[in-house]
Amino acid sequence: MEEQVEMVGRAFVDHYYHLFDNDRAALSSLYQPTSMLTFEGQKIVGVDDISSKLNQLPFDQSKHLISTIDSQPSSSSGGIMVFVSGSLQLPGEEHQLRFSQMFHLIPTPQGSFFVQNDIFRLNYG
Amino acid sequence: MEEQVEMVGRAFVDHYYHLFDNDRAALSSLYQPTSMLTFEGQKIVGVDDISSKLNQLPFDQSKHLISTIDSQPSSSSGGIMVFVSGSLQLPGEEHQLRFSQMFHLIPTPQGSFFVQNDIFRLNYG
Repeated sequence: MEEQVEMVGRAFVDHYYHLFDNDRAALSSLYQPTSMLTFEGQKIVGVDDISSKLNQLPFDQSKHLISTIDSQPSSSSGGIMVFVSGSLQLPGEEHQLRFSQMFHLIPTPQGSFFVQNDIFRLNYG
Repeated sequence: MEEQVEMVGRAFVDHYYHLFDNDRAALSSLYQPTSMLTFEGQKIVGVDDISSKLNQLPFDQSKHLISTIDSQPSSSSGGIMVFVSGSLQLPGEEHQLRFSQMFHLIPTPQGSFFVQNDIFRLNYG
């Protein structure tokens, strides 16, 4: 069980940032109408508004480099908490931006997971 | 509801780091046998082992300075996700350590909350 939680967390993180960096519009497939995103303190609810926010970020290209992934089962409902730290390289920027992000993944009836909670913060030194 | 979640998150964070910095042994009151802590990648389960870990950290005094607190309802069960960033001042250390930490709070029958999930990471620049 424990190992499976770690595997799901890592697979999700790979998938999420791969989509973010290569096909950002497809991230909408990971959210649902109940999903919540807090992005640098801005609260956004629902797959449509979250998708708009992510697609309207002021950069077209990005490259996420993952430093750490910590996963835990969230409760008896089969949910998984995933905590990520890493850095974000944007085009034309000399320095990478450090970030932390947490996801609460909830199982779907189809055997997959969706993002119920998503909180993103840049780490200012 | 939304406002209440923010209030609970802020009150919890104030309480948690106040205890951490002034009466660390009392943090055990916030965990239960099912609680999980991942501390810099080390996984610890249950109030007893979590309490031991926190009390055996290699510093006696600490001062947490909180930069951001983001809270969201976790699900229909009344849980709350709290995501914290801040810095940690240790005695004799010139520089503060930046950290990020997330908590998943679950309501108790007594109308309070306990920490089900706790993930802590220092942010290395």
